[in-house]
Amino acid sequence: MIRVVVVNGPNLNLLGSREPGLYGSAALADIEALVRARAAELDVSIDWMQSNHEGELVDVVQGLRSRADGALVNLGGYTHTSVAIRDAFLAAPLPFVEVHLSNLFARETMRHTSMTGDLALGVITGFGARGYVLALEALVAVLRER
Amino acid sequence: MIRVVVVNGPNLNLLGSREPGLYGSAALADIEALVRARAAELDVSIDWMQSNHEGELVDVVQGLRSRADGALVNLGGYTHTSVAIRDAFLAAPLPFVEVHLSNLFARETMRHTSMTGDLALGVITGFGARGYVLALEALVAVLRER
Amino acid sequence: MIRVVVVNGPNLNLLGSREPGLYGSAALADIEALVRARAAELDVSIDWMQSNHEGELVDVVQGLRSRADGALVNLGGYTHTSVAIRDAFLAAPLPFVEVHLSNLFARETMRHTSMTGDLALGVITGFGARGYVLALEALVAVLRER
Amino acid sequence: MIRVVVVNGPNLNLLGSREPGLYGSAALADIEALVRARAAELDVSIDWMQSNHEGELVDVVQGLRSRADGALVNLGGYTHTSVAIRDAFLAAPLPFVEVHLSNLFARETMRHTSMTGDLALGVITGFGARGYVLALEALVAVLRER
Amino acid sequence: MIRVVVVNGPNLNLLGSREPGLYGSAALADIEALVRARAAELDVSIDWMQSNHEGELVDVVQGLRSRADGALVNLGGYTHTSVAIRDAFLAAPLPFVEVHLSNLFARETMRHTSMTGDLALGVITGFGARGYVLALEALVAVLRER
Amino acid sequence: MIRVVVVNGPNLNLLGSREPGLYGSAALADIEALVRARAAELDVSIDWMQSNHEGELVDVVQGLRSRADGALVNLGGYTHTSVAIRDAFLAAPLPFVEVHLSNLFARETMRHTSMTGDLALGVITGFGARGYVLALEALVAVLRER
Amino acid sequence: MIRVVVVNGPNLNLLGSREPGLYGSAALADIEALVRARAAELDVSIDWMQSNHEGELVDVVQGLRSRADGALVNLGGYTHTSVAIRDAFLAAPLPFVEVHLSNLFARETMRHTSMTGDLALGVITGFGARGYVLALEALVAVLRER
Amino acid sequence: MIRVVVVNGPNLNLLGSREPGLYGSAALADIEALVRARAAELDVSIDWMQSNHEGELVDVVQGLRSRADGALVNLGGYTHTSVAIRDAFLAAPLPFVEVHLSNLFARETMRHTSMTGDLALGVITGFGARGYVLALEALVAVLRER
Amino acid sequence: MIRVVVVNGPNLNLLGSREPGLYGSAALADIEALVRARAAELDVSIDWMQSNHEGELVDVVQGLRSRADGALVNLGGYTHTSVAIRDAFLAAPLPFVEVHLSNLFARETMRHTSMTGDLALGVITGFGARGYVLALEALVAVLRER
Amino acid sequence: MIRVVVVNGPNLNLLGSREPGLYGSAALADIEALVRARAAELDVSIDWMQSNHEGELVDVVQGLRSRADGALVNLGGYTHTSVAIRDAFLAAPLPFVEVHLSNLFARETMRHTSMTGDLALGVITGFGARGYVLALEALVAVLRER
Amino acid sequence: MIRVVVVNGPNLNLLGSREPGLYGSAALADIEALVRARAAELDVSIDWMQSNHEGELVDVVQGLRSRADGALVNLGGYTHTSVAIRDAFLAAPLPFVEVHLSNLFARETMRHTSMTGDLALGVITGFGARGYVLALEALVAVLRER
Amino acid sequence: MIRVVVVNGPNLNLLGSREPGLYGSAALADIEALVRARAAELDVSIDWMQSNHEGELVDVVQGLRSRADGALVNLGGYTHTSVAIRDAFLAAPLPFVEVHLSNLFARETMRHTSMTGDLALGVITGFGARGYVLALEALVAVLRER
Repeated sequence: MIRVVVVNGPNLNLLGSREPGLYGSAALADIEALVRARAAELDVSIDWMQSNHEGELVDVVQGLRSRADGALVNLGGYTHTSVAIRDAFLAAPLPFVEVHLSNLFARETMRHTSMTGDLALGVITGFGARGYVLALEALVAVLRER
Repeated sequence: MIRVVVVNGPNLNLLGSREPGLYGSAALADIEALVRARAAELDVSIDWMQSNHEGELVDVVQGLRSRADGALVNLGGYTHTSVAIRDAFLAAPLPFVEVHLSNLFARETMRHTSMTGDLALGVITGFGARGYVLALEALVAVLRER
Repeated sequence: MIRVVVVNGPNLNLLGSREPGLYGSAALADIEALVRARAAELDVSIDWMQSNHEGELVDVVQGLRSRADGALVNLGGYTHTSVAIRDAFLAAPLPFVEVHLSNLFARETMRHTSMTGDLALGVITGFGARGYVLALEALVAVLRER
Repeated sequence: MIRVVVVNGPNLNLLGSREPGLYGSAALADIEALVRARAAELDVSIDWMQSNHEGELVDVVQGLRSRADGALVNLGGYTHTSVAIRDAFLAAPLPFVEVHLSNLFARETMRHTSMTGDLALGVITGFGARGYVLALEALVAVLRER
Repeated sequence: MIRVVVVNGPNLNLLGSREPGLYGSAALADIEALVRARAAELDVSIDWMQSNHEGELVDVVQGLRSRADGALVNLGGYTHTSVAIRDAFLAAPLPFVEVHLSNLFARETMRHTSMTGDLALGVITGFGARGYVLALEALVAVLRER
Repeated sequence: MIRVVVVNGPNLNLLGSREPGLYGSAALADIEALVRARAAELDVSIDWMQSNHEGELVDVVQGLRSRADGALVNLGGYTHTSVAIRDAFLAAPLPFVEVHLSNLFARETMRHTSMTGDLALGVITGFGARGYVLALEALVAVLRER
Repeated sequence: MIRVVVVNGPNLNLLGSREPGLYGSAALADIEALVRARAAELDVSIDWMQSNHEGELVDVVQGLRSRADGALVNLGGYTHTSVAIRDAFLAAPLPFVEVHLSNLFARETMRHTSMTGDLALGVITGFGARGYVLALEALVAVLRER
Repeated sequence: MIRVVVVNGPNLNLLGSREPGLYGSAALADIEALVRARAAELDVSIDWMQSNHEGELVDVVQGLRSRADGALVNLGGYTHTSVAIRDAFLAAPLPFVEVHLSNLFARETMRHTSMTGDLALGVITGFGARGYVLALEALVAVLRER
Repeated sequence: MIRVVVVNGPNLNLLGSREPGLYGSAALADIEALVRARAAELDVSIDWMQSNHEGELVDVVQGLRSRADGALVNLGGYTHTSVAIRDAFLAAPLPFVEVHLSNLFARETMRHTSMTGDLALGVITGFGARGYVLALEALVAVLRER
Repeated sequence: MIRVVVVNGPNLNLLGSREPGLYGSAALADIEALVRARAAELDVSIDWMQSNHEGELVDVVQGLRSRADGALVNLGGYTHTSVAIRDAFLAAPLPFVEVHLSNLFARETMRHTSMTGDLALGVITGFGARGYVLALEALVAVLRER
Repeated sequence: MIRVVVVNGPNLNLLGSREPGLYGSAALADIEALVRARAAELDVSIDWMQSNHEGELVDVVQGLRSRADGALVNLGGYTHTSVAIRDAFLAAPLPFVEVHLSNLFARETMRHTSMTGDLALGVITGFGARGYVLALEALVAVLRER
Repeated sequence: MIRVVVVNGPNLNLLGSREPGLYGSAALADIEALVRARAAELDVSIDWMQSNHEGELVDVVQGLRSRADGALVNLGGYTHTSVAIRDAFLAAPLPFVEVHLSNLFARETMRHTSMTGDLALGVITGFGARGYVLALEALVAVLRER
C-alpha cells in the first residue's frame, strides 16, 4: 500500500475564513476529507499535517523519506522564501508534487517563484481544493510506474 | 455535451522524437488518444489541433469561444513571448487550463514566465502526457460546476 | 491622388466584442468606414488590411513602398515584440503614423515600449477610432508638404 | 461654448530658435495662432499660457478645473520628472490631451516615460505644431460626446 | 554527397535594396549564386529557402534533419526573439552554422543576443555575403571530419 | 472597553542592552509600562507578547481577531522577509499600526521595505519608545471613530 | 516657549477637494486648526506655511533654523525627487518630523522612497490629519528632553 | 571684453555655514570676490547670480546667450535631476564650464551623474572655491582661442 | 578555560546521508568528535547544538554571550535569508567564526551572500569537516590574543 | 605582399593541454602551422605573437599599424575586460578580425560580451583552429578589395 | 615531500604600512616566516612569490602544475576582475586554497565576488596573517588524503 | 621645492595621432612641455612617466610617496577597471589630482565611473592639454596651504 504524507504550511489552517474570494470556502478539513476519500479509492494511506513554523516543516521534510513513498506539499508563504526547506528536500529527497490553491501566475510577482518547484515532479496551481486531488492522482500514478 | 478544444503550439508535433529525456517518449498522437479516451468516459467532445504558427494560433484562440466551452492549451515556446496570443485570450475569453509536459520551474529562467498563465483557470506543469488528462479533469469539473 | 495603406495587426479583427471598456464598441469595419469617409474628403485612396500573422505583416510592410505613399499602422501585440517587423520598415522605409486605440501609457509596462515608434513620423495613442482619423490627417498633411 | 486652456511648460517660449532641426521653425506664437484659428472654426475659446516654473505649473493645473472644460498640455522637460504636477492633476482632475512637438519614441530613453500620460485622454507625439491642432480636435470631440 | 540547407529568415529577401550601407549591395540571389559556386567546388548540394514567417521557419527547422546533413542559418530579426525556433532546433538537432551579414557586436544591444547561437557549431558575423561562404566551408569541414 | 494586543517580534526582548545608540536604553518592560500607563488613561486593555519565532508570530496574528479590536505591531527583522506573516494578516485581517523604534529610512536599504506596511493603518518609525505611545493613540482614535 | 514651523508642500492647498477617498475631507485649514489647538495645550507656537514651488521651499527650509526650534514637514510630491530640498536640510539642519497623510507603503512604488526621511527624527505615514498632531507631540517631546 | 555669467543654484547662498567640513568656510560672496579679482586680471566682465528656484534658473539659462560669451555653472542639487535646465541649454546653447565645490566622485551615488555635464566644455569637481577660478581660466582660454 | 559554543543550523543533522558528493560522508556527530578532540588539545570547552528552527536559533544567539567566549556558526540555509538572526548577533555581539562545509563560491548565486558574514571575524568555506577544526583554531587564537 | 599579424592573448600558449574538450587538442604551434600554410597559398606574410600581459598587448596593438596591413586577434580573457586594449585599437586603428576557438555564445554570460568586437570587421567564434584559417581568408579578401 | 607555491598579488608587498587597521601590522616577510615555520613542521617545501602584474601572475599560474603539488593564492585586487587569471587556472588546474587577509564580506560590494573562488578547494577570509597558516594546513591535509 | 610626479596610463603615448577629434593634436611630449613650463613658473619639479602596463602602474603608484609630494594622474582605460591601482593608492596614499583630456560625461557610460576619483583631491575632465596645467595649479595650491 502506497503511503503519502500531505504537508500543509503556514496559514492553511485558516482556510475557509481566509480571503474566500481567493482561496475558496472549503476549510482545510474539507480538503482533507476529499483527499482521504480519493485515497481510499486508490488504495493509498494518507498522513495529514499542517504547521505555521518553518523549523517544524524542515523537521517534517527531513523525516518524510522514512515514513512515506511520496508527498503532496503546499508550503504557503514559505514557498517563496525558505532556503532551509529547499535544503531539507535536497538532503532527504523523495518524490513529491507541489500544489497551490490559487493560481500563482495571477498573483503578485513575489509569488511567481518557488524555492522547491524545481525539485518537485510537477506543480499544480489554481484549482482550489480540487488541485489536491489532481496532485494525489499524479503522484500515485508516478509511484505506481516506478 | 461539453465541447473542449485542445490547442498545441510549436514543436509539439515532434513529441516522441524530441528530447525524450525531457518530454517523454509518447508522440502527440499518443497523448491525443489518452485525452480522447478520458474524454469519452467524461462524456466530453474533443477537438484537437496543433500549429507551429503564431498567427494561426491567434486565429484559433479568437474562434475558440464559438466552438467550445473550454480549452486545454500548451503553447510551447510562444508561452513566454507572445503578446499577440495573450491579447487574443483577452479579446475572446473562455475558460482554459494551461498545461506543460516538462516542469517549467526546473528549466531555464526564460521558461519560468507565462504570457497567458494569469488568464488561465490554473496551470499544470511537469507530469508529461498525464498532465493533459489531469488538465481535462480539472477543466470539466470547473465547467460542470458553473 | 495620395495612396494610403492601413495596416492592422493581431486581434484588431475582434474589435467591438473585444474588451469594449478598453477598446470601444466600434468594429474594425466601423473604423474603416470612418477612415474611408475622411479620406474621400481629403481626396486620398485607402487600402485596408488586417492580419494576425507576424510573417504576413512582414510581407506587407516590405511591399508598402511600391503601392502607397504612406501608411497608418496599428500592430497590436507585435508593437512590443517584433524585431522582424521593425527590420521590414528599416529595409523598405516609407512615411507612416503609428496609432493605438487605447492609451498605452495607461496600461501595463510591457505596452509602454514600441519596436517601431521611433521610425514613425509620430504616434497617436488613446483616442479610440478617432485616433485613426487624426493619424490620417497628420499623415496626409506631411505627405502634401513634401 | 467649450473653454480650453493650453498649458506650455519650460523652454517652449524659445520655439523657433531652439534646435529647429528637432522642433521646427514655428515660434510658440505661430502655434498659438494655428490653434486659435482652428478653435474659432470649432467654436471653442482658448486660454493660452506658458511657464518655465514647476511650481507655477502646479498652481495652474490646480486651477484648471474652475476655468476650463479641458486642456492641451505640453509639459516639456517636467513631463518626465514632476511628481508634483502629476499630483496636481490627481488632485484636480479634468479631461486633457498630452502633446509633444518631437517624437518622444525617437529620442533619449529618459524621454520615453511620462508622469502624466496615464492620466490623459491620450497622447500625440511627433507632428510638430500640427500636433496641437490634432490634440484640440481630439479633445473637443471627446468633450462634445459627454 | 553532403546535403546542406540554407535557411534565410525575415527581410533577407530585400537584400540589395535594404540599408545597403549596412548589408551591402548584393541581392539574396547573388549570395545564393556565390554559395552554389563554392558548393559545387566542394561537391556539396545546396537547398536554398527564405521565409518571413516564424511558424514556417519552425516547420522548416523541424524537417531539416530528414533532408540535410547540416545547415547554414541566418534568422534575421527572429534570432533575438524566437523561443519557438530555438525549441525546433532542440527537438530536431542537426549540425548548423549561424551567420549574420552585419557585425552584431557593432549594432544595438538587442542584437547582441542570440536564441540559437549556443546550439550552433559556431557563429560568423560581420563579413557580408562572404560570411555565407566561410560558413559553408566551416560546416563542410566539420561534417567531413565526423 | 477596547482591547489591544501589542505584538513584538525577534530580538525586542533584548532592548536596553541591544545597540543602545540605535534603539535607546529602555528595556521592553519599560516600554510596556509606558504603554500600559497611557492605555489606562485611554480606558483600553493591553495584551502584551513577544516572540523570536516566525511560526509563533504567524499563530498569534491568526488569532488576533478573536481576542482584540486592534494591534500594535513591531515585527523586527521579520518585517522585511516574512511572506508567511503577511499572509496571516491577509487571512485574518484587523486594524493595526506598525511601529519601529529606529528610523528605518536612516538604516540599510534592506530595512526600507515592509511586508506588512501596506496592510497597516499607518507606520510610525524613528521615535524610540515614544513611538509605541503615539501608535496606541492613533489606533485607539481610529477604532473609536468606526 | 517652543517655536514650531509647519511646512506644507505642493498640492496640500487643495486638501478636502483632492482625492478625498485617499486624503480625507479635511481642508488644510482644518488641519491647521487641529494643530494649533493641540499646540496651545502644549504651550507651543505655530508658524504655518504652504507652497507649491520647490525653490520657495528651499528658501524656507534654509531659514527654519533662525525662526524655529523644530519643524513638521510634509513635502508632498517633492518628498521623492528633490535633491535641492534635501541639500537645504543638510545645509541648515534642525530637528524635524516628516508626516504624510496617506500611507506611503500602500501607494505606488515611486512614493516608497524619501529624500529627507533619513534626516528626520522619524516618519509618520498614514493617519490623515491626526498624523500632524501625533507628529507635533513627538517633536515637542524630543525638544523638551534635550 | 569677454562677458561671463556665473550661475549658482540652490543652497549655494548658504555657503560658509553649510556643512563647512564638506564645502569649506568661504561664503558665496568670498568666492565671488575671488572670481572678480581674477576676472579683472584677465580683462573679463562678470555677471553673478544665485537662485534656489528651478524655473528661475531655466529663465536665466535661456537668456545667457544674449548677455554673455560663456558661463560658469554650479547647479547644486538640480545638477542631478533637472531635465528642464538641460533642455534650456539645448535650446539656447553657449560655451560653459560646470564646477562643483566638493568632489562628486567621493559622495553619494545619486551625485555621480550630471544632467548637463555632457553639454559642458568640461567639468571641474572637488577643489572648493579655487575650482571657480580654474573654471574661469579654462573658459576664457577656450573663448580666446575661437 | 575558553568556552566555545558551536551553533549548527537547519539540515546539518542529516549530514552523512545528505548529498554526500557535496557535503562529505561524515555525520554531524563525527564532526563533533573531531572538534571536541581538537578542543581538548587546545584546553577549550565545547557546547554543541543544532536546530532546524529559525526562532530557536535567534534565542540561542541572544544567549551566547552569557555562556561562551566565542562561537563557531554554520547557519545552513538561514545564512542567506535571516534578518532576525543577523539582528540577534547585532543585539548580543560576541566573537564568532562562520564556517560552511561546501565552497559557497562554487554553488548557486543565492548562496553567495551571507546575512552574518560581515559580523564574523572571518569566514571559512569549502573544506568539509576540516573547516570546523580550522575555524576553532582561528577563533581560539583570536580570543587568546585579546 | 599583404602583411598580417596574429595576436594571441593570455593562456593561448597552453593550447592542447588546456581543457581539450573545450579548446581541442591542437597546440598553438599547430594552429600557427595551419595559418602559415594557408597564408603561403594566399601569398600573405604572417607575424605571429602571444602574450599573457595586458600592457604588452596594448604595446603590440599600438604598433600594428606600422608593421601590418591587418590583424587576426584572439584576446582570450582580456576580450571581456580590457578598456585599455580597446583604446589602443581606437588610437591606432587597422582592419582586424576577432576569432575565438570555442563558441562564446555557448559559454558563461561574462563571455558573451566583447570590448573589441564592434571595432572588428567581423567575429568568428566556435570553429576551433579552423576559425583562424577562416578569419585569415576573410581578412585577406577584405584587404584585397580595398 | 609536498611542494607548495604561495602566490601573492598586487599591493601585498606593501603589507605592514598599508592600511594597518584593515590589514594588520605584519609585513609580507613576516607572513612568509610564519608560513615557512609551519611548513617545516608539516614537512612541506614553500616557494614564495609576489607580483603586481596581471600578466606575470598568468605566467606563474600556468606553470604552477609543473613545480608544485598545490598552491596558496591571494590575488588582491585581481581577485575581482581578472578573467585571464581565472582562465589560467582552468587551463592548468591544480589544487589551491584562496586566502584573504581582511574579511571580504565586511567590505565594499565589489569585493564580495571572486573570479577564482569557485575553482579553489575553499576560501578563507578575514583572519589576517593567520589565514595563510590555516590555508596551508587545509591544503596539506587535502593533498595528503589524495 | 615641491616635487610632482605625472603618471600617464595606457595609450597616452599615442596622443596627437590618436583620435585627434577627441583628444586634440598635441602629442604627449607637447603636454609635458606645457606642464614643465608652468611648473618652472611655480617653482615645482616634475617627474614624468607613461606606461601601458597595469602592473607597472601599480609599482609606480606604490612608490610615489617616497619620491613626490603629490601627483597628477591620468590612468586612461585603467581608470574604469583597475581595482589593483585603486588598492595601490589606498596602500600608499598621497595627494593627487585626476585629469582626463576628453570630457568623460560626454562619452560612453562605461567611462562615467572612476575607480580612483573618490581618492583624488578632485577631478578635471574635458579641457584637453590645458586640463593638465589646471590640475597642476590646483595640486600645488593645495600642497602649499597644508
